[in-house]
Amino acid sequence: MIPPVVRVPRLACTPKGAQAGERAIPEETPVAIVHNGSTYAVMMATPADLEDFGIGFSLTEGVIDRLADVEDLELLEFDEGVEVRLWINAERAGQMVARRRQIAGPTGCGLCGVESLELAVKPARAVGAGRVFAPADISRAIAALPPAQLLNHATRAVHAAAFWEPEAGLVAVREDVGRHNALDKLVGHLVRQPRMATENPASRGIVLLTSRVSIEMIQKTAMLGASVLVAVSAPTALAVRTAEAAGITLAAIARDDGFEVFTHPQRIATGGSNTETVPHVA
Amino acid sequence: MIPPVVRVPRLACTPKGAQAGERAIPEETPVAIVHNGSTYAVMMATPADLEDFGIGFSLTEGVIDRLADVEDLELLEFDEGVEVRLWINAERAGQMVARRRQIAGPTGCGLCGVESLELAVKPARAVGAGRVFAPADISRAIAALPPAQLLNHATRAVHAAAFWEPEAGLVAVREDVGRHNALDKLVGHLVRQPRMATENPASRGIVLLTSRVSIEMIQKTAMLGASVLVAVSAPTALAVRTAEAAGITLAAIARDDGFEVFTHPQRIATGGSNTETVPHVA
Repeated sequence: MIPPVVRVPRLACTPKGAQAGERAIPEETPVAIVHNGSTYAVMMATPADLEDFGIGFSLTEGVIDRLADVEDLELLEFDEGVEVRLWINAERAGQMVARRRQIAGPTGCGLCGVESLELAVKPARAVGAGRVFAPADISRAIAALPPAQLLNHATRAVHAAAFWEPEAGLVAVREDVGRHNALDKLVGHLVRQPRMATENPASRGIVLLTSRVSIEMIQKTAMLGASVLVAVSAPTALAVRTAEAAGITLAAIARDDGFEVFTHPQRIATGGSNTETVPHVA
Repeated sequence: MIPPVVRVPRLACTPKGAQAGERAIPEETPVAIVHNGSTYAVMMATPADLEDFGIGFSLTEGVIDRLADVEDLELLEFDEGVEVRLWINAERAGQMVARRRQIAGPTGCGLCGVESLELAVKPARAVGAGRVFAPADISRAIAALPPAQLLNHATRAVHAAAFWEPEAGLVAVREDVGRHNALDKLVGHLVRQPRMATENPASRGIVLLTSRVSIEMIQKTAMLGASVLVAVSAPTALAVRTAEAAGITLAAIARDDGFEVFTHPQRIATGGSNTETVPHVA
């Protein structure tokens, strides 16, 4: 397999002069997601956890609804990159072809601009009620993340997506040079857990992101069915509106000394009279 | 026009309790790039400098070779987002249709995985010799950037791409929630300068990025013809290999106290015996 971290020579220039040496940096590999022999997309990704990536991406894109839709999965490594080949069951594959015609818009099929724009901002799936967390839960979750970011320890240059439950702590961390990929890998890992076959534990915990929150991160979280998303960095205004509409509690700018809640604060048990001042995003 | 910065209500949670208030966050808008009536791509972008974006993106994608290929440009605002409509001259448009057939691969046209992977990592265009800079030039360039990041002052959540020349200082800064978009906006702005009609000033200065450097940032810099790229954050290994092959000097992890050179250090005049220890990336 391709190593996800590479040591390269580099010249360090400081006021004291130039000094040759090495630095560990993340690898970046083209990864083709191929459904029943046909390429759906190529992403630049960290070459790790690619089975999770193939399944998670297929799920957040709506190509599959559940793990059972995947009949087989194989990874093939080439000089140019990696193919993740998924074989989708025949009934589902028929729907996939119909859907591909619809989604071709934003990528050069000749649809007019407005049609393409409508496809880009399709509403996120609404999530369930989920559960209520204490502010201390959010702080514990955020504090648990850095020690588990192994690729980031080596490179200081990759994003992480993780899942945290009050009873179990940090149950999964996935890392990638692309923040979308990290979340897709996390989604793939979670739906491959046997307990997902009988319940959706995504509604029992918190999705954690080290990155900023753009609309796609909300859309992917909604496809997982998670009701609380906490990010280290800031959201965009479109992400806030999309989280509001999907019923997702979005907390961001989460640091050692606190965090900010942008939507659906009813899932954060702040307690006391301060809850009366909770704002509602229009 | 859509404002690029939005104030939203939010609940700040700290150990002292929860407090309602507001925060300025960046807007994120679907922007369709439409060539001669047909959508080429939809990107999520900051709604500012969209003429620059349309021209820069068309150039870094190779749809146009020069500003003169664009016969007309208009912006249309819809509820769903913004269309940047470019009208490309007829001869160029014919080549564009031929090229679109080739690039359809990575985006769901049914090409096999290996063909799609090859298209994703096509070699970057080789840049010219350019000029040599002193380490102090790099430091001056990086120091000039933060005061010019106006959207980032308001939101602390957007990337910048900028161009710096020793004689003129910081000549342009463009900002966006997407780092690729910020660089495309910068490219569009630069090629729209009248002096670009008679010379390529991109070889006379430094492209600055606040972000990490993935392969696409190298490919776009190469399309501009700039020979030196300096980034605040780290590069990927694929970006280093691509910069090496394209002849681009890549410096990164640029901070107040220095920077690191990963490729073609001959354009950084470090002076003295230390230059003998300059590594060459294999």
